[in-house]
Amino acid sequence: MKNAIKIFAPASISNLNVGFDHLGVAIHGLGDEIIIGKGEKTGLKITEIRGDKRTLPLDVLQNAAGIGAYALLEHLGATQEPLEMILHKKMPIARGLGSSAASAVAGVYAVNSYLKVGLEKSELLPFAKMAEEAVSQSKVLDNLAPSLLGGMMLIQDNEKLLYKRLYAPSGLHFLLLIPDAKINTSESRMKLPETVPLKHAVQQSANFATFVAATYTSDFEAIKTCMKDLVIEETRSKSIPYFEKYKEIALDGGALGFGISGSGSTMFCMTDNSVIAENIKEKVQEFTVQNRYILDTHLTTINTEGVIKL
Amino acid sequence: MKNAIKIFAPASISNLNVGFDHLGVAIHGLGDEIIIGKGEKTGLKITEIRGDKRTLPLDVLQNAAGIGAYALLEHLGATQEPLEMILHKKMPIARGLGSSAASAVAGVYAVNSYLKVGLEKSELLPFAKMAEEAVSQSKVLDNLAPSLLGGMMLIQDNEKLLYKRLYAPSGLHFLLLIPDAKINTSESRMKLPETVPLKHAVQQSANFATFVAATYTSDFEAIKTCMKDLVIEETRSKSIPYFEKYKEIALDGGALGFGISGSGSTMFCMTDNSVIAENIKEKVQEFTVQNRYILDTHLTTINTEGVIKL
Repeated sequence: MKNAIKIFAPASISNLNVGFDHLGVAIHGLGDEIIIGKGEKTGLKITEIRGDKRTLPLDVLQNAAGIGAYALLEHLGATQEPLEMILHKKMPIARGLGSSAASAVAGVYAVNSYLKVGLEKSELLPFAKMAEEAVSQSKVLDNLAPSLLGGMMLIQDNEKLLYKRLYAPSGLHFLLLIPDAKINTSESRMKLPETVPLKHAVQQSANFATFVAATYTSDFEAIKTCMKDLVIEETRSKSIPYFEKYKEIALDGGALGFGISGSGSTMFCMTDNSVIAENIKEKVQEFTVQNRYILDTHLTTINTEGVIKL
Repeated sequence: MKNAIKIFAPASISNLNVGFDHLGVAIHGLGDEIIIGKGEKTGLKITEIRGDKRTLPLDVLQNAAGIGAYALLEHLGATQEPLEMILHKKMPIARGLGSSAASAVAGVYAVNSYLKVGLEKSELLPFAKMAEEAVSQSKVLDNLAPSLLGGMMLIQDNEKLLYKRLYAPSGLHFLLLIPDAKINTSESRMKLPETVPLKHAVQQSANFATFVAATYTSDFEAIKTCMKDLVIEETRSKSIPYFEKYKEIALDGGALGFGISGSGSTMFCMTDNSVIAENIKEKVQEFTVQNRYILDTHLTTINTEGVIKL
């Protein structure tokens, strides 16, 4: 491939207990890499996908990275441009870490960077959203906005594409607990209740509002007491083995919060320093081995850059 | 009355569209005044109530100010102390402006100040809560916390008495539209739906979270788009004449938000400067006269002090 460049779009944790469909944070160390360069023939081709255990399609219009890239090319009137992409999944797929969002963002950003289109990141969001929606039927930005723009993002309105970057207190660490089980986002969404008790809705709303106020003021005590999910967790945690046990380990170990990332199966644990996170990680691993279960752990921090050209 | 002192506890706007039962703001110019001094006989007496059109009881254990004051006296083992109080209602009653909360706060603070008890304001909250609950069956702090402590208060947990003062951007003005009709809070509460659609609950939660983020960043554009109520307004606005019309006047006039204060009947309009508020006030008055309706207006700002000894 000639004149190739490399793009990296980070994975993200969404929902974070308090902000179902409206909150997400980009993380370091996991994400999608795309190498894009001049192709042999006209049009966009995905020539290779690595790290996906052969689960993702090479067909451009079936793949989130391809759809996103193609949507931008179409907008530019440049679908005939000879382009090749290699997609390297450096993150788990279908585990609630925004895999399709990372692909969508990386694909769009790859075209924007390689062809020197010069659109602002925020202008790329609609194209990435199209791709995310096509492959996962998800209309929400809670993974897309963090992967694109970095940081902790509050999504005000998923339809109107309104979002706001939250101030993230320093010291936040996330321990990911990644089981072997895949979860299909759109199937998981169908299992959710259609209505919620007003009482729960109102308290959950206050939890989210308090979380936001607490981030602006680095009020970890408030985060600890508000970072709870009264609406979604009960339904979704049932399909995640040992959820309650891991939660207990995390909270007993001093975590600020513990919950399900996206629709799972990944669980996350948020702490206000690395020592607490490392100690919890050890206890999680100990429990996992004792119970002959299989679970990956990944200790990470907030990625404030979002997608970049490497 | 000997050695009398005067206490003032401000009225407050609660809910503010986004924070049902969990958000309130103290305001200038309306509230409860209590004159407290040495009485002739043992025990606490309310000798006079002004400004209530004879609707409030003089009986100490029937009156929010009396109950609050008595609860603190009981805590101190000082119920025999000869005390007299005159209560002056300088605000409308049963209009959703926290009248009982202002009474409760003023009563407790009057005893704390007069007897030089020296408790912190935050330590007085449980006594005021008892009084509020006794007279209005309300277990929420959304009027109590602002009236006691001043400012814009986010109530994290009404049962655990957890609250957090929000940063209030400068320039905020509130125009109150106060109809003649009284609303009984506990009856109004019974009319609310028991469940809400998950979709509305989730968006409302994002609205509240965005409102909080927007206050910390003085982002008036975001406030304008998020300050909406999808959960309560539909039910409650039906019993408030011309609600939709006044809302239209306010929003067309450039208000950041318009809604029902508490359970009504008062409507509030929030703006980011006084000129807009004054212009809306004129249009509201014009419409009211044209329709031969009766409605008081009151233009005010945030009271950041809360209850004080005058």
